[in-house]
Amino acid sequence: MAIRVTVWNEFRHEKKSEKIAQIYPNGMHETIAGSLRKDSALEVRTATLDEPEHGLTEEVVKNTDVFVWWGHMAHNDVDDKIVDRVHDRILEGAGIVVLHSGHFSKIFKKLMGTTCNLKWREHPEEREILWVTRPGHPVVEGIEDHFILPHEEMYGEFFDIPEPDCTFLISTFTGGECFRSGCEWRRGAGTVIYFRPGHESFPTYHDPNVQRVILNAVKYVAPKVTAAPSFGHRKMGWIDGKTE
Amino acid sequence: MAIRVTVWNEFRHEKKSEKIAQIYPNGMHETIAGSLRKDSALEVRTATLDEPEHGLTEEVVKNTDVFVWWGHMAHNDVDDKIVDRVHDRILEGAGIVVLHSGHFSKIFKKLMGTTCNLKWREHPEEREILWVTRPGHPVVEGIEDHFILPHEEMYGEFFDIPEPDCTFLISTFTGGECFRSGCEWRRGAGTVIYFRPGHESFPTYHDPNVQRVILNAVKYVAPKVTAAPSFGHRKMGWIDGKTE
Amino acid sequence: MAIRVTVWNEFRHEKKSEKIAQIYPNGMHETIAGSLRKDSALEVRTATLDEPEHGLTEEVVKNTDVFVWWGHMAHNDVDDKIVDRVHDRILEGAGIVVLHSGHFSKIFKKLMGTTCNLKWREHPEEREILWVTRPGHPVVEGIEDHFILPHEEMYGEFFDIPEPDCTFLISTFTGGECFRSGCEWRRGAGTVIYFRPGHESFPTYHDPNVQRVILNAVKYVAPKVTAAPSFGHRKMGWIDGKTE
Amino acid sequence: MAIRVTVWNEFRHEKKSEKIAQIYPNGMHETIAGSLRKDSALEVRTATLDEPEHGLTEEVVKNTDVFVWWGHMAHNDVDDKIVDRVHDRILEGAGIVVLHSGHFSKIFKKLMGTTCNLKWREHPEEREILWVTRPGHPVVEGIEDHFILPHEEMYGEFFDIPEPDCTFLISTFTGGECFRSGCEWRRGAGTVIYFRPGHESFPTYHDPNVQRVILNAVKYVAPKVTAAPSFGHRKMGWIDGKTE
Repeated sequence: MAIRVTVWNEFRHEKKSEKIAQIYPNGMHETIAGSLRKDSALEVRTATLDEPEHGLTEEVVKNTDVFVWWGHMAHNDVDDKIVDRVHDRILEGAGIVVLHSGHFSKIFKKLMGTTCNLKWREHPEEREILWVTRPGHPVVEGIEDHFILPHEEMYGEFFDIPEPDCTFLISTFTGGECFRSGCEWRRGAGTVIYFRPGHESFPTYHDPNVQRVILNAVKYVAPKVTAAPSFGHRKMGWIDGKTE
Repeated sequence: MAIRVTVWNEFRHEKKSEKIAQIYPNGMHETIAGSLRKDSALEVRTATLDEPEHGLTEEVVKNTDVFVWWGHMAHNDVDDKIVDRVHDRILEGAGIVVLHSGHFSKIFKKLMGTTCNLKWREHPEEREILWVTRPGHPVVEGIEDHFILPHEEMYGEFFDIPEPDCTFLISTFTGGECFRSGCEWRRGAGTVIYFRPGHESFPTYHDPNVQRVILNAVKYVAPKVTAAPSFGHRKMGWIDGKTE
Repeated sequence: MAIRVTVWNEFRHEKKSEKIAQIYPNGMHETIAGSLRKDSALEVRTATLDEPEHGLTEEVVKNTDVFVWWGHMAHNDVDDKIVDRVHDRILEGAGIVVLHSGHFSKIFKKLMGTTCNLKWREHPEEREILWVTRPGHPVVEGIEDHFILPHEEMYGEFFDIPEPDCTFLISTFTGGECFRSGCEWRRGAGTVIYFRPGHESFPTYHDPNVQRVILNAVKYVAPKVTAAPSFGHRKMGWIDGKTE
Repeated sequence: MAIRVTVWNEFRHEKKSEKIAQIYPNGMHETIAGSLRKDSALEVRTATLDEPEHGLTEEVVKNTDVFVWWGHMAHNDVDDKIVDRVHDRILEGAGIVVLHSGHFSKIFKKLMGTTCNLKWREHPEEREILWVTRPGHPVVEGIEDHFILPHEEMYGEFFDIPEPDCTFLISTFTGGECFRSGCEWRRGAGTVIYFRPGHESFPTYHDPNVQRVILNAVKYVAPKVTAAPSFGHRKMGWIDGKTE
């Protein structure tokens, strides 16, 4: 059965900046979705902020196994009800791959319980090296010891996140900063991946290593069919050796 | 310097039920606070839901090192602004010890990012055994291998929480259920402890082991003086070997 | 490509006790292997203590993706060199599923760094309930909220293991004890699962839920193809903006 | 009651190299111990490889609350029996602070269960920046957002360690590498801290920030008095509602 992916993008920078539109003519979501579509195990749609319900109707959310999320300048324009809907779906078992400036999205902050704040800098000479800190992790399948992005925005620690269940990538920048760039957390029956790269003014989502990590991440967080957890009142069962 | 503790209680059950008022004549908060006050390293105040700003004014929150939190029937009556205020203070470095039905409080859910749902049952024959699953952890200082509460409400797994940074107590109940009863998570510069026992209709907060765990937890999550994290824009520093 | 599984069993109890031989006529390893062989994605062999090199020659170990390990009375008869060989293979990326009394095996203790000690009891009236504490985890795919083994040996906390990266099952027993029965840790590029059930005098490995968890675990810990980590001396690369 | 600290040092480099002897005239252990002795809450002794039983007799080990460990060129000269003795003591509740090249010591590898391998480089222009990744953690009390060591050996990821319970410092180096430099794990009733800096040919242990982290770490891992865990056979207790 196909993994049903919804790539969500704020899709505002690409409309406002000619420079960014040249890098991502149809929006970052289409570049990311296009790369994912090469894998026949995935069924990929996109959704953007300015569509009705941000493209995340009940129907879409219910039928999404994995969300990919990019946002930056308009986090506050995302309706709380839609955030709750996506949040509920993740706790039920869906996966989410949060990208770059999505660290400040409502959905990521709600899943983490922290500010998700960090340091940042745009500098023309900034390069990022991403080091694998958990070889063998499914999300770094096919990735070498480290890979380089010649031009990226700097994100620096302290990154205000809960201790990750696993940290599989750490970045360094020209300025000497570091950042936990690939992290994993379980929330309810779902899984959350944060993956750092992807500043809008660089062609990062055309990079083959970046595309590979996103593909791996999508497959990794895709839900397995398990019984929904049962909550609430439970009758007495085993007392005095009696069975349920 | 004293650890400044604010014991927060919903304080409604005690006013509505004569039976509960007999167990906690001045409210659960006073029983808990009274037990903590025996330790001269602590400076303990209380706050309750029906006070102005729930007793959690900016002044009080700013001057609280550790919150102890009990709520049950009126979680929704807690103002979101006050929740945000406490949340901010914890991420800045304060500690919080969430008790029993506080699992469904707004502050705990906001810190966890999950539903915090569980199974439950009240049954007159239910006893709880709490097993130490991390001997040597400061929060179980003075606690034996396990201890028993002869009458308690059952809470059962699945408890919808993030994987704890440390699980130091797991409970079992007469009905055969289990529950992660003592857990720890870091959030921002602060620390969160969840400690399960304390159903309002049992004299649990008079129990010496329960009192000891709460005292230990308060001391454990008390903030250390560290520099506040620095966030936001950061100038280029180290490029070409130049120092900051 | 098939996942190459080696089911290792001490295979002594079955030869010494008629009662146990009735439950597992060809040894526990054959019952477990037979159940795994129903899945065509797996290529399953067995190995036992009294074979040359315990059936774990360099050739076998090199060509094993996942080890399943059962031992009890003869942990000390396992040669340290073979333990090191399996240990090396796991850190390189192989998986291991350690069962029941395997908690005291040399390989598990070496991977954990602790005593792996616990409490135990054999009692004819003991039943085990295994509660899912991480719905959505691939290892509990197809498992309900909880399942019951009517007759098992009791294992009780404190179980001296490092804090698991994920705890997906916790058991309770008739005597009121609890035990972290399904746990996961990453070691090197490999993954370790501990799964509690399987006392030799009960037909536990014939149980469909137990078989399902073992199958899921084998698939979960199977290695992904990643670059081997690179260690040792590394030349200066990026200083003064020069690339590698 | 004082925290009883044993600072263990291989103490070979200082005897062989005049340059190193100039930095640490009485050995690194005396520099570290001298710095710790300024805190009156600590009772500090030293022990070195070439003393009988490496200075770690049963008497010394039994009366040590916290070990500080530095070794490099002679890890294999450390007797396995002494390693086991220290290992047992840690699992019983003592703490250990492993420094720098101690990553390859027998005791650290035994506690971790992994190779503890890494990348390294000595280069005259290498500087290290240590970034706080868990503000509020007791081990970074008094440490700013980050601190700089102008000359240090590079250690680079992948560092083959289990996922830490908490990562409170990450370093970057001039060459663009990163390293998890401050990590914490619980083992048995004890706590393990790894702290990276301290190459023998630099005056790192004279640095006030480094001294502060070591002091904080020693206090943090010092044992609390708890009941020893009880292991082994346990009689049936609670069946049919009967108490123990």
